[in-house]
Amino acid sequence: MAEQNSVSDSSASNGISSVIPGWFSEMSPMWPGEAHSLKVEKILLQQKSQYQNVMVFESATYGKVLVLDGVIQVTERDECAYQEMITHLPLGSIPNPKKVLVIGGGDGGVLREVSRYSSVEQIDICEIDGMVVDVSKQFFPALAVGFEDPRVNVHIGDGVAFLKAVPEGTYDAVIVDSSDPIGPAQELFEKPFFASVAKALRPGGVVCTQAESIWLHMHIIEDIVSNCRQIFKGSVNYAWTTVPTYPSGVIGFMLCSTEGPAVDFKHPVNPIDENGTHSKAKGPLKFYNPEIHTASFCLPSFAKKIIDSKSK
Amino acid sequence: MAEQNSVSDSSASNGISSVIPGWFSEMSPMWPGEAHSLKVEKILLQQKSQYQNVMVFESATYGKVLVLDGVIQVTERDECAYQEMITHLPLGSIPNPKKVLVIGGGDGGVLREVSRYSSVEQIDICEIDGMVVDVSKQFFPALAVGFEDPRVNVHIGDGVAFLKAVPEGTYDAVIVDSSDPIGPAQELFEKPFFASVAKALRPGGVVCTQAESIWLHMHIIEDIVSNCRQIFKGSVNYAWTTVPTYPSGVIGFMLCSTEGPAVDFKHPVNPIDENGTHSKAKGPLKFYNPEIHTASFCLPSFAKKIIDSKSK
Repeated sequence: MAEQNSVSDSSASNGISSVIPGWFSEMSPMWPGEAHSLKVEKILLQQKSQYQNVMVFESATYGKVLVLDGVIQVTERDECAYQEMITHLPLGSIPNPKKVLVIGGGDGGVLREVSRYSSVEQIDICEIDGMVVDVSKQFFPALAVGFEDPRVNVHIGDGVAFLKAVPEGTYDAVIVDSSDPIGPAQELFEKPFFASVAKALRPGGVVCTQAESIWLHMHIIEDIVSNCRQIFKGSVNYAWTTVPTYPSGVIGFMLCSTEGPAVDFKHPVNPIDENGTHSKAKGPLKFYNPEIHTASFCLPSFAKKIIDSKSK
Repeated sequence: MAEQNSVSDSSASNGISSVIPGWFSEMSPMWPGEAHSLKVEKILLQQKSQYQNVMVFESATYGKVLVLDGVIQVTERDECAYQEMITHLPLGSIPNPKKVLVIGGGDGGVLREVSRYSSVEQIDICEIDGMVVDVSKQFFPALAVGFEDPRVNVHIGDGVAFLKAVPEGTYDAVIVDSSDPIGPAQELFEKPFFASVAKALRPGGVVCTQAESIWLHMHIIEDIVSNCRQIFKGSVNYAWTTVPTYPSGVIGFMLCSTEGPAVDFKHPVNPIDENGTHSKAKGPLKFYNPEIHTASFCLPSFAKKIIDSKSK
C-alpha cells in the first residue's frame, strides 16, 4: 500500500482505492488505466503450460472463466457472442463451405459453431497449446463439445508452421481465433502470416481473424487493415460485436477474401439450418442471426474514417 | 482484509485478490459480481447534493469522469457514443423536429447534440439536480457547451412533475437521459411516467429513453417494453450501442412514437447537416452515422426473442 497515489484510504466508501479480495482483475498494457474484475467463487485450476499461465475459476455471475496469461479468454455467460460471430461471419458469407481451418481456438467453441454446417466435410484445427484443449475438455464441456465431431482433426502445434505446409488453395475458410498480439499469438497479426493464410485459401476463400477493439486498439487495427489490403485481393472488411468480458466490451473481426468469386461479407448467403442434424445437437444459436451479421459491419464514425482510409 | 474468500493472498500476481490503490471501482447490485475500474490521476471534486453523491476525477486513460452515487455517468473518452446515439436515434427519425424536451441530461451532452438541428426552435431541459449542471459547467466544457445555445431553457426540478404540467401535444421529441432505476431516477422507468411522456408528445412524436443493458438487465427491459407497448400506440423499438465505461460495455435505448404519422425508427429520415451553422460549431460527429443508426436496432438472438415477444 506504499504505492504513490492521490487518493486517501478514507475514500474507500466511494469505490476509490477499493481493495477487492476474492476478485480477479484483468490488467494489461494493452488497456492501460482500466481493469475489469469478476468476483471469484473458487479457483479451479492454476497451471503453467509450455507457453502461458492457464487459470480457470468459477465466477459469481459469469459462470466458469478461462484465463490465459492474466487475460480472460472465455466466460460461460458471454462466450456465445464471440464464438458465433467469429465463425458465422465468414461461413455465413460463402455458399457450401467444405474445408475449414481453425488456428488457435483450443477451447473448442469455434469448432462447435463450424460443425453446425452440414456442407462442411473437414475441420482442421491447429492450436499451439495442448493444455488449453485439455483444460477445456475438463471444465468447459459446452465448448469442448466441438472436438467430438468426427469431421474434426486436431493438430497441436504452431499455426504459422502448419499453414506453411498446407497445399495451396486447400481451404474454403480459415478462422484465426487468437489471443492478443502480446505472447504466443504475436505472429498471427503479422504480414507473413496473412500471406500464408491467403495461399492456403481457394480462390474466393475467406478468412476471419480476431482483430481487437475499436475503442482501444485503432493503431493495431490500422496496421491489420493495411496488411490485409495488400495481401487479400478480394474483399477486406472490419466487423465488431459486443462481448462484456473483453476489454472495452467489444471485439472486432477482420474479414477478407482472396481473388476469385466475389464475396459480399455484408450480405450473408449461407444461412444455418438450425433444425438440421448437425446444428440441432448443439442447441439453438444464442447470439447470431442474419440481421446482426449485416449490422456488425456498421462502424462508428471515428473508426469508419480510419478503416476506410486504410482500405483504399 | 478479514473478508471471507477462497483465494489466498499469494495468488495476487495472477490478478486475483488485486489490491488496486488509486483506482475507482464501480460496483452495484445492478451488476453483481463484476466491477469496472479506472485508474485515478486526481480527484477533482467530491460533494453531496440534495439527491446524490457527486464526484469528478481525472482518470489515467479516459479523461475526466463524472460519477453519481458511485456509478460512472460520463467519461470524456467515450461520452460521444451515448450522447450522439440517445439524441440522433429519435431526432434522426422524424422530419423537422421543432420542440424537444430533455429529462435528466444535466451534464449538457444531449443538449449539445440536440442543438445540431437547425429545425429545432425550442429545447427544454428538466434536470432534478442543479449540482450536476454546475459541475458539468466547471469540469466538462465539451458537454456543458450544450447550455450555451439560446434555444435552451433550463428547469431545475422533478421531471415527473414537470411533464405533468406540460400541455398535451407540446413536443416533437422527448429524450430521457436518466441514471439507473435505483436512486432519483426510479420513477422514470415506471408506467405513469411513460403515460405523461405520451401525453406531452404531439401525434407521431417520439421518445427515447435510456434502457439499460441487454446482457445484464433483460428483466428490466422486458418490463419497459411491455409498459411502452401499452402506452405508445405508434412504434415501439429497442436499440443498443457500445459504451466501454457502462456496465457490460453496452447501453440500450427504448424508442417509441405516439399514434399519428408513422415513424420508422430503423430508417432515419432527418440527416444532420454537419456543415450547417448549428452543427459546425460543435465539431464533427464522432460516433453517429445513418448506417449505425439502422444497425443499432439489430439485436442478438437472446434479446430479440424476449423483446419481440413483449412487443406483440
